[in-house]
Amino acid sequence: MAPQNIEEADETAAPRPRDGLFIRVYFGDGRHVGPGMIELLETIRAERSILSAARRMGMSYRRAWLLVDEIGRNFREPVVETHPGRRGHGTDLTPFGERLIALYREIEQRSAAATRSAVEELRAALSPAGKAPETTREKAEG
Amino acid sequence: MAPQNIEEADETAAPRPRDGLFIRVYFGDGRHVGPGMIELLETIRAERSILSAARRMGMSYRRAWLLVDEIGRNFREPVVETHPGRRGHGTDLTPFGERLIALYREIEQRSAAATRSAVEELRAALSPAGKAPETTREKAEG
Repeated sequence: MAPQNIEEADETAAPRPRDGLFIRVYFGDGRHVGPGMIELLETIRAERSILSAARRMGMSYRRAWLLVDEIGRNFREPVVETHPGRRGHGTDLTPFGERLIALYREIEQRSAAATRSAVEELRAALSPAGKAPETTREKAEG
Repeated sequence: MAPQNIEEADETAAPRPRDGLFIRVYFGDGRHVGPGMIELLETIRAERSILSAARRMGMSYRRAWLLVDEIGRNFREPVVETHPGRRGHGTDLTPFGERLIALYREIEQRSAAATRSAVEELRAALSPAGKAPETTREKAEG
């Protein structure tokens, strides 16, 4: 499975148009951490189940499982642990999975804080909203 | 033309695997500024020609022109000015085009500086390189 599936997850993770910084952290060999992957881990944490997380995020179980497998292979330590004997709620994050989420969210927050004035200058330079081309996503949302 | 073409430009802008933060700035309505757009503007600045910039970046003139047109429509002020009478070298950046590049590169640099320790902790947690799945890009490069 190729990493661009994670990139696709990044693109589709936002149900409405994004606002602010979108960040992926690349490691120079194709591996990276991005918002789609982190959102999936956060949803698994909430649902305690890859199947339920997949449903909530509107992706197939197979796709969610492959993404989790790929995240796990990218790092030394596993990000989830499964408890096969437990009905439902069979998956928890590992301490490293929690750390991965915390580090990514910290990167987002620190970057936003460090760039606020530059982002506001860009925002102030935007043309009036009506001039923006309609996006596919906006079309899909009506 | 839909903005996801600019997102594609972001994805294809890096000839080798990226290292460090990849950042797009979104404005909540689908509009955004990303590295593909900025690299195109920097290449136009160097070549003083949209055609030459397109060639150097391996994209069609039409695609480059549409991207520049979209960038221009997103903001109040134009990012390039053309000099139809001049042979070759017919396009320069406007002061606003220069400012757009400077602000984006400042956002990248400030974010990198603010997140260095978190990124290094992620990097230290990566599995040995051999364990990483091969990416399409790496395959294409041999």
